[in-house]
Amino acid sequence: MSLRHALLAMLDAGAMTGYELAKTFDQSANRVWHATHPQIYTELRKLEREKLVAAREEPRGPQGKATKRAYTLTEAGYEELSRWVSTVEEPTLPRDATYLKATYFEYASPDIVREQFATHLAYHTEQLRRWEWHVEQLRSRGTDLMQRRLAEAPESRHAAIVAYKVHVYEGMAERARAEVAWAERGLALVDRLEQD
Amino acid sequence: MSLRHALLAMLDAGAMTGYELAKTFDQSANRVWHATHPQIYTELRKLEREKLVAAREEPRGPQGKATKRAYTLTEAGYEELSRWVSTVEEPTLPRDATYLKATYFEYASPDIVREQFATHLAYHTEQLRRWEWHVEQLRSRGTDLMQRRLAEAPESRHAAIVAYKVHVYEGMAERARAEVAWAERGLALVDRLEQD
Repeated sequence: MSLRHALLAMLDAGAMTGYELAKTFDQSANRVWHATHPQIYTELRKLEREKLVAAREEPRGPQGKATKRAYTLTEAGYEELSRWVSTVEEPTLPRDATYLKATYFEYASPDIVREQFATHLAYHTEQLRRWEWHVEQLRSRGTDLMQRRLAEAPESRHAAIVAYKVHVYEGMAERARAEVAWAERGLALVDRLEQD
Repeated sequence: MSLRHALLAMLDAGAMTGYELAKTFDQSANRVWHATHPQIYTELRKLEREKLVAAREEPRGPQGKATKRAYTLTEAGYEELSRWVSTVEEPTLPRDATYLKATYFEYASPDIVREQFATHLAYHTEQLRRWEWHVEQLRSRGTDLMQRRLAEAPESRHAAIVAYKVHVYEGMAERARAEVAWAERGLALVDRLEQD
């Protein structure tokens, strides 16, 4: 049920069309809670049925003749968001397919094991680069979503708005660093086992 | 589909009843890939229908009059296990409810935020203790499952059998250390934001 709360929090930064919401999600919460566009659109329709968001027609384009459907957070939506944030989250139980498979690498050839660790290394090196870039963007308050959010919020809350997001994305960067180191140690291990 | 492969790998260490398999799972793979006992029993029945494991009646108790149903890995089961281990696993996309919620902690009171970070800290401190203990057990080849596995395998494979499991569980310990540090920095952050 986390997706819906991420969508509510994003709409608290201002009205967005479904497309804008999906695009903004891709550039923010998606990096902590993965969801696809069809999942986002399905959830948005549910939120509208439950009156946690409301749709309104807005003019589209320079002539203002065509319209687009923009979503806003309702009072009930804001209350649901506050309720969720104020409920302590239970720890996520581990379900990591790569680590599970690595437990049984004695059944695989050294080349396959190398390929697995190299894939892991490449993925998390790229993730790390993204996280570090995102942390810099948040610190300098440079993302579109952050600018909209700060424009909506009283200045007394700005420090917290920035600091918690930086804390989360720095945590994700730390995780990626740990995965990079794990994959590198794994590659060294395959070599060592082959030499024995 | 990872659960089934963990069960196949466990049965490669020797025949087990459903109950023994579930108990052994709790003490090993469950710490990397969480599953409940009903999920394990359901998967075991599927594996039997697909002839990847076979059941046989074995004597139970000292008199040997009662019987128990023990499961063994079939040739097809061993092939499926090998196929899975030799397929490079795609990276797991992030879905972390605690980190997602922390992104929006500006909506929560400082006390709630403290409680969330303290819960995270307590959970991962305990997890870390378990991982470190498990790594020691694996290194000294002290777990029941490890002893059964080594007894079944040629000695040339023993080093790899131990080393890959140690590598995975050390990686899990490293992750827990990163979570402990993240929660501690989070607690310091709440204090700092309150003082500002």
